[in-house]
Amino acid sequence: MQALAAQYVGNRSFEILEGRVDAPSAGEVRLRVGYVGICGTDMHIYHGLMDHRVQPPQVVGHEMSGVVDAVGADVTGFSVGDRVVVRPLDYCGDCPACREGYSHICHNLKFMGVDSEGAFQSYWNVKARTLHKLPEHVSLKQGALIEPLAVACHDVSRARLKAGEKAVILGGGPIGQLIAQVAIGIGAEVMISEPSPERRSFATSNGVLAVNPVEQDLKSAVDEWTGGKGADVVFEVSGVQPAVDVMTEIAAVRGRICMVAIHSSKPQVDVFKFFWRELELVGARVYEAEDFERAIDMVADGKIDLEPFISKVAQLDQIDSAFSSMDGNPSGMKALVSCGADG
Amino acid sequence: MQALAAQYVGNRSFEILEGRVDAPSAGEVRLRVGYVGICGTDMHIYHGLMDHRVQPPQVVGHEMSGVVDAVGADVTGFSVGDRVVVRPLDYCGDCPACREGYSHICHNLKFMGVDSEGAFQSYWNVKARTLHKLPEHVSLKQGALIEPLAVACHDVSRARLKAGEKAVILGGGPIGQLIAQVAIGIGAEVMISEPSPERRSFATSNGVLAVNPVEQDLKSAVDEWTGGKGADVVFEVSGVQPAVDVMTEIAAVRGRICMVAIHSSKPQVDVFKFFWRELELVGARVYEAEDFERAIDMVADGKIDLEPFISKVAQLDQIDSAFSSMDGNPSGMKALVSCGADG
Ligand SMILES: [Zn+2]
Ligand SMILES: [Zn+2]
Ligand SMILES: [Zn+2]
Ligand SMILES: [Zn+2]
Repeated sequence: MQALAAQYVGNRSFEILEGRVDAPSAGEVRLRVGYVGICGTDMHIYHGLMDHRVQPPQVVGHEMSGVVDAVGADVTGFSVGDRVVVRPLDYCGDCPACREGYSHICHNLKFMGVDSEGAFQSYWNVKARTLHKLPEHVSLKQGALIEPLAVACHDVSRARLKAGEKAVILGGGPIGQLIAQVAIGIGAEVMISEPSPERRSFATSNGVLAVNPVEQDLKSAVDEWTGGKGADVVFEVSGVQPAVDVMTEIAAVRGRICMVAIHSSKPQVDVFKFFWRELELVGARVYEAEDFERAIDMVADGKIDLEPFISKVAQLDQIDSAFSSMDGNPSGMKALVSCGADG
Repeated sequence: MQALAAQYVGNRSFEILEGRVDAPSAGEVRLRVGYVGICGTDMHIYHGLMDHRVQPPQVVGHEMSGVVDAVGADVTGFSVGDRVVVRPLDYCGDCPACREGYSHICHNLKFMGVDSEGAFQSYWNVKARTLHKLPEHVSLKQGALIEPLAVACHDVSRARLKAGEKAVILGGGPIGQLIAQVAIGIGAEVMISEPSPERRSFATSNGVLAVNPVEQDLKSAVDEWTGGKGADVVFEVSGVQPAVDVMTEIAAVRGRICMVAIHSSKPQVDVFKFFWRELELVGARVYEAEDFERAIDMVADGKIDLEPFISKVAQLDQIDSAFSSMDGNPSGMKALVSCGADG
């Protein structure tokens, strides 16, 4: 098989060229890449909105699975043939956050596939410390969705959502829908608020209550659903002011509001409600190692079915079609790019 | 001694008239009132800003100490002569918040002394379930400050502040200064940000680092103080937009921001920082029973000296002078009204 690489060259386009097959350095492994998912960040890159962080021409991509192809010096615990996923965080190990054990929020964090070379290629060399093994019966296709599923696991864990509690998810994109599946997987009840009919129907066809906040008063819906108590947890995954307005309206006394969305402007927040009802706002960014382990376990245990999330699979040399299939398409959840390794 | 009562009659004035001496109902005790503190809420009432909740003419006042004078039927655990303070929360016991154990945020909470009759009188009948006993060597004068100290204990506990951590307090009024004393009392380090020179000098004379955020860049000061890490905890006690702007700037990764202030408008909040640094915003309202116990213990153990906080003591029939002494006076921390019982 010829080694290929898809370089993002700016202006919604990729160039396919010969890929590198380098020997792994000490502490690194070389992966034969299986599948790579396209996420919102990749779409932002595609639209040229992240040229301050990526350096085109650059290989991007960070939601991936693969097979260990070569092992560098000083690597223990991994052998050629191991099926793995990458936690794409390159941390410094030495800043105040790393020293406190929060390396996923390292002051000098490099997000692999954005701030450095990514996975849209046949082979990818990565630090062994970023790897998590896939059990035998989790496929490489499913593996490519472990990264966004780990995001959802992290969000649920930051919100301290428990079995029997009720959570409202503001926004039914891929992360919102994955949060819903994780929440149901741990025994919570879930309602998604989402204006798009395609995304509401994705939710309901996967067992999730869905409400259109434009047509229906969300606060009344939540009051009715919770007997006047309000939601134990609210996940803000939409990034818009109306969601920020409603999040404090629908939370129960001592409710936790988990901030997952990226708000590029400073919204107005009903801070009084935080005081009056002792609400909590909890930020959640990417994931920690245990979130990857939990995500893999949930798929391995059959608690989460990732198949409905895969809306398209394209070969690496057709990467353009994978990106354009996601562009402005509310029914597309996750497009995968097949980079060679399978199984 | 003649029984007196000070009724708030609106428009910054009180009327002194004969007080009631009623037999306590079942579950209640009659208190001989010792000292009653004046807090920000009382000043709001005095300025006519809370006439939607108080019903003038009404006896107000809720920060108090007293002596049990008579015990109603079905009251156990209290006897005539017991020196006590009142936790002035009248909750329903039956709403979703009460059922979850958060009766201090009861959906139908009545705040005694605001929503019902208060303590500026010689005798006050209250439910026995609101009482906490004072140990022998805590005076009734100190007792009148247990309620605001319990607020500070609740804030520190909601923020999960621990020994060895660094906290910044935005606002050096009575609650901010009491939070500082509680924080120091549990072994944390504290910096108060406060524009008023009188309040900064109160802070420093009580062992607290104080910064003027108008003259000095608070973020630089905090960075220097914490070696670039940021504050483990920020208490927002000021209620103004510049404090909301800076609170997200100075918090460490995973820092907790405790919302103590009442924001009457919706400020703009840098929600992105909550995501990016996994910050938490934690609302804190009044107190729970254990906060009163902790406050009493800290005073009894000599961990907190309340004497510097008492800026004036006036007799009940001079209550006007106590209120006017606090009006627009940044150096006044706490004026007490002496209502008869002493010791
Ligand atoms: Zn992603
Ligand atoms: Zn670091
Ligand atoms: Zn008060
Ligand atoms: Zn209640």
